Amino acid sequence: MDQESFVPPSGAFTRSVTIRFSHCDPAGIVYFPHYFDLFNGVIEDWYTYELGYNYAELVTGSHYGFPFVHIECDFKIPSRMGDVIELTLLVERIGRSSLGIAIICHKDGLERLRARMVTAMMSLETRKPVPLPPDLRDKIESYRQRTTGG
Amino acid sequence: MDQESFVPPSGAFTRSVTIRFSHCDPAGIVYFPHYFDLFNGVIEDWYTYELGYNYAELVTGSHYGFPFVHIECDFKIPSRMGDVIELTLLVERIGRSSLGIAIICHKDGLERLRARMVTAMMSLETRKPVPLPPDLRDKIESYRQRTTGG
Amino acid sequence: MDQESFVPPSGAFTRSVTIRFSHCDPAGIVYFPHYFDLFNGVIEDWYTYELGYNYAELVTGSHYGFPFVHIECDFKIPSRMGDVIELTLLVERIGRSSLGIAIICHKDGLERLRARMVTAMMSLETRKPVPLPPDLRDKIESYRQRTTGG
Amino acid sequence: MDQESFVPPSGAFTRSVTIRFSHCDPAGIVYFPHYFDLFNGVIEDWYTYELGYNYAELVTGSHYGFPFVHIECDFKIPSRMGDVIELTLLVERIGRSSLGIAIICHKDGLERLRARMVTAMMSLETRKPVPLPPDLRDKIESYRQRTTGG
Repeated sequence: MDQESFVPPSGAFTRSVTIRFSHCDPAGIVYFPHYFDLFNGVIEDWYTYELGYNYAELVTGSHYGFPFVHIECDFKIPSRMGDVIELTLLVERIGRSSLGIAIICHKDGLERLRARMVTAMMSLETRKPVPLPPDLRDKIESYRQRTTGG
Repeated sequence: MDQESFVPPSGAFTRSVTIRFSHCDPAGIVYFPHYFDLFNGVIEDWYTYELGYNYAELVTGSHYGFPFVHIECDFKIPSRMGDVIELTLLVERIGRSSLGIAIICHKDGLERLRARMVTAMMSLETRKPVPLPPDLRDKIESYRQRTTGG
Repeated sequence: MDQESFVPPSGAFTRSVTIRFSHCDPAGIVYFPHYFDLFNGVIEDWYTYELGYNYAELVTGSHYGFPFVHIECDFKIPSRMGDVIELTLLVERIGRSSLGIAIICHKDGLERLRARMVTAMMSLETRKPVPLPPDLRDKIESYRQRTTGG
Repeated sequence: MDQESFVPPSGAFTRSVTIRFSHCDPAGIVYFPHYFDLFNGVIEDWYTYELGYNYAELVTGSHYGFPFVHIECDFKIPSRMGDVIELTLLVERIGRSSLGIAIICHKDGLERLRARMVTAMMSLETRKPVPLPPDLRDKIESYRQRTTGG
């Protein structure tokens, strides 16, 4: 568990989260499944506030789902009640219907954990993957470019 | 389930919460235990931002806990993904070591649910109730008065 | 928090639950919203194993929901990781579409907490209360009678 | 998401879990962070019932923690309310203080998801990794051998 610094790229979508009593376990640190719930919240906010797509509307109105097909996560520094952590979302890969996202949890310039997650856009009616709509795809691609220099 | 209007008293501590995908159940509405978790978060924030007591510090530094001894809750209007609800905290009763709190969830001037909760301040070491420290008590009493006209 | 004994009535539906690490908070006791989640699980199992109604089928097949309209709960003795608690379900009242249920959490003959919960049967399509189907009602009434002597 | 069969090795620790209403999201499938909570429960039970180490006692009595340092997970077939899934635990690697565990979720002979998780045994007092106690290590090694033919 060597310490690694992290500075979010300029323009990267970052949310602050205060670690609450309810996030923590009897050992006093965040119970790890809560991180995944926090990540999901960041992705929702990214759709809504960064890409301009209302996530709730995508799911309940347009009947799209965004289930995860792969997740990996390295836990480096634990977080405790009262810590204000930062969660930064980066786009790693844009597929036909899938999206590779990294979420980096950091505080005071140090990386605390890093998750790489692949979601697939799916029709909730047919339960099949659907191609990312061109407009959404363009916005994601534009976000990717301006946050990686790519 | 008749509709009831609610206007928070002037100065009342209110937090907005966006209902997320993860709060909702297969019926598309908030799974009710999540409300209690949200209420706990509001109480934490009230200690920290309204009363000026760092809740994390009270628990992990001073080893106080605030377990609930009684809860009652009326559910009136369900909430759905994407709804931005308001949670207002009012103080109903200040005991020796106990505190009666009401949390009203409302949106667009209508009450959606109302919880009445009694917590007791407890030493995490002795596992016994402890009297509310005078300074904390004064701040709570002052909050109660200015939000009820009491 | 005086201690009160509890002996489940003969024939009462009771489930054992082991308190897990993940149920507990930094104070080492069950974080209270988890109790409500456990209660919901007991109610599901009661429908399925005691009344012979597949709860999943009622919800996903028949599109019925059972939202709570009122909950009250007294917390008497906290539970810790590793405790095996018993959850006993009793029927208190059967209305047209509503159901009053008590869930008593006990261990070693002592009551740890008691919740009284009112649910209403609802159509997930019309979002309106529906009368309890006669066969379901009869089974609940029969359960009520044989567990209360009523 | 091609289908893959899975037959647990003879003697492998397997737990059945019924997917509940509360595990599922508005899309009607298990909200993914719940899987990680279920996995943690399986690991607890494996310590207690297979290895003969009371997990609660290890944590609250001996002040050991078992935080995760790495997790990866492939989601193949979603699970719905009422599904009874099987969770099988296999040991992949035994380090000095770390443990590589695989948890395979399956149903009707098909793999639904597979997680690979690395935990490290840690003192809750020093917050440092501690070597696995020899007796615990032997029991884990013995489990590994009899479930892999290794």
